[in-house]
Amino acid sequence: MIPTGRYVVDEEGDVNSQQQRAEETRNRILAAAEERFAQYGYDATSVAEICRQAGVTKGGFYHHFSSKQAVFLELLDQWLGMLDTLLVTYHDAETPVADELLQIAGMIRHVFREASGRLPMFLEFWNKAAHDSAIWQVAISPYRRYRDFFARLIEAGIANDEFQAVDSDVFAQLIVSLAVGVILQGLMDPHGGDWGKAMHEGMRIILEGIKKREE
Amino acid sequence: MIPTGRYVVDEEGDVNSQQQRAEETRNRILAAAEERFAQYGYDATSVAEICRQAGVTKGGFYHHFSSKQAVFLELLDQWLGMLDTLLVTYHDAETPVADELLQIAGMIRHVFREASGRLPMFLEFWNKAAHDSAIWQVAISPYRRYRDFFARLIEAGIANDEFQAVDSDVFAQLIVSLAVGVILQGLMDPHGGDWGKAMHEGMRIILEGIKKREE
Repeated sequence: MIPTGRYVVDEEGDVNSQQQRAEETRNRILAAAEERFAQYGYDATSVAEICRQAGVTKGGFYHHFSSKQAVFLELLDQWLGMLDTLLVTYHDAETPVADELLQIAGMIRHVFREASGRLPMFLEFWNKAAHDSAIWQVAISPYRRYRDFFARLIEAGIANDEFQAVDSDVFAQLIVSLAVGVILQGLMDPHGGDWGKAMHEGMRIILEGIKKREE
Repeated sequence: MIPTGRYVVDEEGDVNSQQQRAEETRNRILAAAEERFAQYGYDATSVAEICRQAGVTKGGFYHHFSSKQAVFLELLDQWLGMLDTLLVTYHDAETPVADELLQIAGMIRHVFREASGRLPMFLEFWNKAAHDSAIWQVAISPYRRYRDFFARLIEAGIANDEFQAVDSDVFAQLIVSLAVGVILQGLMDPHGGDWGKAMHEGMRIILEGIKKREE
């Protein structure tokens, strides 16, 4: 948090402890909202209930967030941020791009763990996105970002002679589509298949299709 | 409709015209529900509104359907039935399985046309499925049926020596996952990519990965 003009104190320690308290409150609101959204759904959760669970006044809530939707978007941002961090963690210029892509495919198990129980909430969110263009922008941007990420990786593989000179956008879209399909089905029907294996095999086949053939 | 004991008439023509009227009423209810669900969403549509739009009394409605949900499930069944018919239409024992699979991938454009504007309704439905095990069974069964369909096609390709002896279940899951991902993204973000091409390329790559190599 950036200190605001409201904190008129002359000792740095006081500013710090006020900042710390503010951040704690903010985190309590996020944790309470996350729990209630997951358990009761987004629509069925009121700001009053989030406040009660977090032990925060309404004034405290609105000091940190302009609305319930702002809390939800912040939570979404945090989850996606986690995924971004994982993707960057796997990135290593020394590793062949094909190996990196297979490692990323293996991450889908983390995604299932993180997203477990949250499908209803995501569906509610997409439903809102389908009706509201501001939310739609937020909902669609991660797909586009991941597609760009994979397109750049594939271009790196083409540049270092691992892959054929394929259309990187089409293949990036293919990888994201496969991941979206596996995740959606895996959340709908966790016991209906080995979804981790489906993703790994899918990625392996895609790589098989684009890798440079030895002549 | 099978004539019931209620129709005590002695002339066959009367039975037929009563049957015909009953079927017309049923179709009017389905058409009205489809239109309102697509425009206002499932939750926001009441049986009374469906009746008003269809020009049917509540008694007439409940003669044909036990609930709003029953109407929705019937609509879902009809859409999926259309897809099943398309799949069977493409099936031809003379055509190489690989060609048939590519033709099926091309069908995704029909799916986009059919499903256009209905995403909110599907999301609402999946949301309900996530909370209700009876609806969940209905929601999940088409995925499993399509997976079985593709598994059988792949087995046919293995049997006639087009494909390697791969795990047909894993590859069938892969095809369905890809299709689900492409459809979901295509409905969310119709202008975000050439989704028909993504599906076609995806299928081509999968086929490339499983086809028997000439040694």
